[in-house]
Amino acid sequence: MSTTAVIGSGGWGTTFAAVLAEASPEEEVRIWGRSPVVCSEINEQRRNSRYLPGVKLPANLRATTDMAAAARDAAILAVALPSQAVGQAIAPLRGALRPGAIVVSLMKGIEAESGRLMSEVLAQTLDVPYRHVAVVSGPNLAGEIAARQPTTTVVASVEPATASRVAEACATTYFRPYTNADIVGVELGGAVKNVIALAVGIARGAGYGDNTIASIITRGLAETTRLGTAMGAHPETFAGLAGMGDLVATCASPLSRNNTLGGRIGQGMSLAEATAATGGTAEGVTSCVSVLELARRYDVEMPISEAVAGVLHHGVPLRDMPHALLSRPRRAERD
Amino acid sequence: MSTTAVIGSGGWGTTFAAVLAEASPEEEVRIWGRSPVVCSEINEQRRNSRYLPGVKLPANLRATTDMAAAARDAAILAVALPSQAVGQAIAPLRGALRPGAIVVSLMKGIEAESGRLMSEVLAQTLDVPYRHVAVVSGPNLAGEIAARQPTTTVVASVEPATASRVAEACATTYFRPYTNADIVGVELGGAVKNVIALAVGIARGAGYGDNTIASIITRGLAETTRLGTAMGAHPETFAGLAGMGDLVATCASPLSRNNTLGGRIGQGMSLAEATAATGGTAEGVTSCVSVLELARRYDVEMPISEAVAGVLHHGVPLRDMPHALLSRPRRAERD
Repeated sequence: MSTTAVIGSGGWGTTFAAVLAEASPEEEVRIWGRSPVVCSEINEQRRNSRYLPGVKLPANLRATTDMAAAARDAAILAVALPSQAVGQAIAPLRGALRPGAIVVSLMKGIEAESGRLMSEVLAQTLDVPYRHVAVVSGPNLAGEIAARQPTTTVVASVEPATASRVAEACATTYFRPYTNADIVGVELGGAVKNVIALAVGIARGAGYGDNTIASIITRGLAETTRLGTAMGAHPETFAGLAGMGDLVATCASPLSRNNTLGGRIGQGMSLAEATAATGGTAEGVTSCVSVLELARRYDVEMPISEAVAGVLHHGVPLRDMPHALLSRPRRAERD
Repeated sequence: MSTTAVIGSGGWGTTFAAVLAEASPEEEVRIWGRSPVVCSEINEQRRNSRYLPGVKLPANLRATTDMAAAARDAAILAVALPSQAVGQAIAPLRGALRPGAIVVSLMKGIEAESGRLMSEVLAQTLDVPYRHVAVVSGPNLAGEIAARQPTTTVVASVEPATASRVAEACATTYFRPYTNADIVGVELGGAVKNVIALAVGIARGAGYGDNTIASIITRGLAETTRLGTAMGAHPETFAGLAGMGDLVATCASPLSRNNTLGGRIGQGMSLAEATAATGGTAEGVTSCVSVLELARRYDVEMPISEAVAGVLHHGVPLRDMPHALLSRPRRAERD
């Protein structure tokens, strides 16, 4: 039996739970949510109107506010919580998982305090061997998957058998997982993506066109690849679905929080004003600081991430931002 | 003295001529156009209202319908003509160029009849040594550059001194060239891009969302990279501004002809109907056939280009297209 469960009932957690439920219609898939209102709505009306308006959820999805009960029998436990809160939130599950359980990160971020990637936070907090940890990432805008639009994704784990088991559990006609052993590359691609999406949002908000945006996306992925390879990741991962694919989907989407918040900064709002207008922060706001710490540790230049951190956190004027992108003319492209 | 000239007064030819003119305000930059009306408008009103509506052109741009006169003294001669017509159109210039002249391709395509890239067509037709040929390509939507939006571009030549001279001739505050020695990679990236843009247009026209589009873009660039490396190009070129950058800018732009024509196919029009509605064909319609010939010659799988050729030229039903993208589930990403 391969019972599966998801911790987190936001847009992506609920969508991934629905994918798991559709992939195994005979099984009950459990989902934990903090809010009793959201949980009752999932159980009674098969909806999560706050995070996935208009989407009908499968009948074999069961929501609960009892995290230990949701996790107890899960052979595969996926976690989708805000990256800065996850360590504390799941600490009570330590020692409470089924032996041999696989833990899956659906999150994209770096824990600010420790500099750890989400897979490391999960493995260490839950005391699960790293070979039983996987990461799911790709061009995966939740609303489109919930609407059963076809997409691809990447399931990464250092242990191929772990990646294959997770891929099998979530494969449906419209959700197509590829496996990859480069977990660091897949996670880093996701975390830095949020920073690049902020840069794209800022540029768009400030009125720049598609050429500038495409340059930022391209050079943003290039600096992500530089950092990743310095950290031992495989450069091809960044050219793949969890690197370029995720970045391109996010930057095309008006629904991305990083994109939206960046757009407001680009229009001239302060970070506080933009956060208020967006109804909360975005992952990239915190991640950009952690990304730059990694860049310093591994001695890698990341001009776009630096420009984002400069504008958001260090009072660098908006008008200096294009400079970060275009400041190295007439050089060889690969320098 | 570094007199420059552009052959071709469409949107991109006129824009690049304007960039050259702004980069060297003391020089006269010549531009050849077939149409006396377009040439007089450029000379008398500093406009090209047919191809660049709303744009004011620099005063040191001089248009002529006499191709030999335009090319005669040029130290740098850039060519922007339809890729299937260029060989015949420039044949009269053979032997008529200034000794040592550099010839620059602004075109993206493969000559159907011969399978040659544009740089090869230029070198052979004009009898110019290949080390004096360069290619300019990047995230370069003409309208945005004409509006002086900041962008980056790539100037490629097998001879670094050639690339540097062209880069110097076109560098302005808003147009920032990087040099690259991988001319095959830069050209192939541009040619296959048009095919991927058709695929993206078709998918969008058929109602697919940003996840699917991002998957097509990512896997389209991956198949371009496979073909390019088999042909001796450098894989990093495809991750750069002339590969990913150009592809992302084109696929974001509603003004791209390949995108637009693809969209109409995706909505159910035949190729003939879509071509009529678009007011002419798009480069990718011909290129996809030549790209697949290269793929066969170099024994490379290109499922997205095949799907495009299938739908456009071989009566494959539209509904089978997503299959090409998603047909290899639960495999390792790099297989």
